[in-house]
Amino acid sequence: MADWHIVPGGVTAPKGFRAAGITAGLKASGLPDLALIYSETEAIGAGVFTTSQVKAACVEYCRQKLAAKHNIRAVLINSGQANAATGEAGWQDAVACATALANQMQISADAILLASTGVIGKRIVMDKLIAGLPKLVEAANDEGGDLAARSIMTTDLVSKSIALQTTIDGRPVRIGGMAKGSGMIQPNMATMLAFITCDAAVSTNLWQQMLVRAVDKSFNQVTVDCDTSTNDSLIALANGQSRTQAIIEAGESADQLEAMLTEVCQYLAKAVARDGEGATCLVEIQVSGTHTDVEARKIALTVAGSPLVKSAIFGRDPNWGRLAMAAGRAQVAFDQNELRIQMGDFLLMEHGQPLEFDRAAASNYLKTAAAGEYLQTDTVLIKIGVGQGRGIGTAWGCDLSYDYVKINAEYTT
Amino acid sequence: MADWHIVPGGVTAPKGFRAAGITAGLKASGLPDLALIYSETEAIGAGVFTTSQVKAACVEYCRQKLAAKHNIRAVLINSGQANAATGEAGWQDAVACATALANQMQISADAILLASTGVIGKRIVMDKLIAGLPKLVEAANDEGGDLAARSIMTTDLVSKSIALQTTIDGRPVRIGGMAKGSGMIQPNMATMLAFITCDAAVSTNLWQQMLVRAVDKSFNQVTVDCDTSTNDSLIALANGQSRTQAIIEAGESADQLEAMLTEVCQYLAKAVARDGEGATCLVEIQVSGTHTDVEARKIALTVAGSPLVKSAIFGRDPNWGRLAMAAGRAQVAFDQNELRIQMGDFLLMEHGQPLEFDRAAASNYLKTAAAGEYLQTDTVLIKIGVGQGRGIGTAWGCDLSYDYVKINAEYTT
Repeated sequence: MADWHIVPGGVTAPKGFRAAGITAGLKASGLPDLALIYSETEAIGAGVFTTSQVKAACVEYCRQKLAAKHNIRAVLINSGQANAATGEAGWQDAVACATALANQMQISADAILLASTGVIGKRIVMDKLIAGLPKLVEAANDEGGDLAARSIMTTDLVSKSIALQTTIDGRPVRIGGMAKGSGMIQPNMATMLAFITCDAAVSTNLWQQMLVRAVDKSFNQVTVDCDTSTNDSLIALANGQSRTQAIIEAGESADQLEAMLTEVCQYLAKAVARDGEGATCLVEIQVSGTHTDVEARKIALTVAGSPLVKSAIFGRDPNWGRLAMAAGRAQVAFDQNELRIQMGDFLLMEHGQPLEFDRAAASNYLKTAAAGEYLQTDTVLIKIGVGQGRGIGTAWGCDLSYDYVKINAEYTT
Repeated sequence: MADWHIVPGGVTAPKGFRAAGITAGLKASGLPDLALIYSETEAIGAGVFTTSQVKAACVEYCRQKLAAKHNIRAVLINSGQANAATGEAGWQDAVACATALANQMQISADAILLASTGVIGKRIVMDKLIAGLPKLVEAANDEGGDLAARSIMTTDLVSKSIALQTTIDGRPVRIGGMAKGSGMIQPNMATMLAFITCDAAVSTNLWQQMLVRAVDKSFNQVTVDCDTSTNDSLIALANGQSRTQAIIEAGESADQLEAMLTEVCQYLAKAVARDGEGATCLVEIQVSGTHTDVEARKIALTVAGSPLVKSAIFGRDPNWGRLAMAAGRAQVAFDQNELRIQMGDFLLMEHGQPLEFDRAAASNYLKTAAAGEYLQTDTVLIKIGVGQGRGIGTAWGCDLSYDYVKINAEYTT
């Protein structure tokens, strides 16, 4: 299935996409704060957004444009101000951003999507954003993916960008992606933004369905601290520039595209988890033996999000008791006598009861992960079996360290 | 409504109840580790237990006895070993505990309930427990409530005990209670145990219904870290020794009893939250304006449990943005333009938008709470309004400090 390989370029790897990232002056730090992704030709768009009742203006804006199935040409992303909890004035700012970019690019404002991240309750510094647009559009090129990825960072420690290539109908097809994660910044909160580009030709409905399924196996399975932001947005564009036959129904080509889309989403989701505030390692929880995949994913996410599990991993403690406890409270029924827990190569529990194991060696496994290589050997793998069912599911998280508290408690003083 | 007053004695304040707490040697520390509550006459019993799929033997044991509506005479509680994840052997241990106590007290084993707290995966040190029973039964008296409360502690910093008295039908009626909280201890997890005694005469069904409603407004509204233990148990006995008329249906007497029961549960629940690992203050979240009380409680609990909110409070940061975010993700629909947030006397947000306020003074309010008096002035009060509905709800939690991570990460090394 995994008949793809990594290619450089991030969101500009797929044909016909350009991107840019500049410093418009929205952030006090002087770091890049304005990004643009655009497609040389019309693209279809799909999106998944925060489920919070408190939504940024850009979230509602994108929902409206995507619901109307407008063809999309560009996505404008600012960091620095979240434009959430800003009322009608914030909404007008969003509209003005789209209008100004439309004029600059000489395209329809309906073909533009928006995303914001930064301080909530703060309106976008509009004069600086508007003044930056000519430079931004000018700067956009087909190698701008990585710079765009850097421009959407807030307190992220690393930029998150990936592109994969496969072959469909004998032609190369690429999907690129970039994301920012849950580096929480003054005075507010995590925002997860992710942007996907694809040069396959695919129907809007199918693309949206693929995206929702991919998100269920990736971004929805990531937890840093179980908080959800006002601005969380995932936007995916597909422009057909690979010149493959249009994928309009289920079948081999659709499966192939969806598998690669899922892989891109999972890479970015893991990168977000790994970069959780104060994290020293990535934690992957694999659950099996439930009746359904949904149940397995639910247990996996509950375990990955448990503060007791997370602090035990930071303490390099192979604490099967906390893992069993967290699995048990996921509101998925199972027979506790079937519970089996493995951490790395260490079988900690079987038939619902703890086993003898080499605690020092298991603790060392956790220590090694914390010193491991980014998204490779820095991963703690925990496998949990709860029965004989065929359901499987995976979730990703990170450990809970002193630095999490420090980052989130101390910035105001 | 609040026509009650505090009386000394905890669970032994109500007529006809005795209690004891001794050191049987189950804990390595030599601290008290075995407690008994018993009623001189038969009592009705009600219970609420962990919803985890991984349950201690004592939980299943109590469920069976209460389901059969056996009259209850005694509750035996051990700390040191949780007797969870111990399989059939653990179950047999539970049965043997009840049998031994029944023989010692010369009562039916069906009249005995059990609770355990401590290390999961560890079976009870049966020889020591059995050897301690004669001394335990001997020690029980009508002033033993406070000692019993101390004997169920694990890493709790303070024992938690309360008793209230009211007048029903011209006669004094008392409800006593004790609890242990979520001090997490090697190598495992929070367990919340609570025990209630009452000398009113009340029907079993009504008493169970009252307890469930009281728990919904108290223990179910407390969060330290959103983890649920294998052993969480609340057991409530009523023995009729106040000689009031039997309360068998809804009405004034039932309302009065339920209000006092709710107060006892809320006191204990708040004490558990205040004693959360590393906590420096109690946090009370009051939500109003929802359609239903259930919705309001859901929002309140979500906010109280948010790690971002909790770490902001530890940082003495009046961070309305995190409060708004947490309220928004509670999966309760509301109009974000109606959102109103107050912290102490400081109105932080209205109509969904932040207000100007004295940040230094608001921060000082949080500092003052952290230095305040136990369960009195150590409470941070946050009021959140989400609309015009009549639903109200409250939840309690605590802040998230370095010590939480320290307590939960560092004990193995």
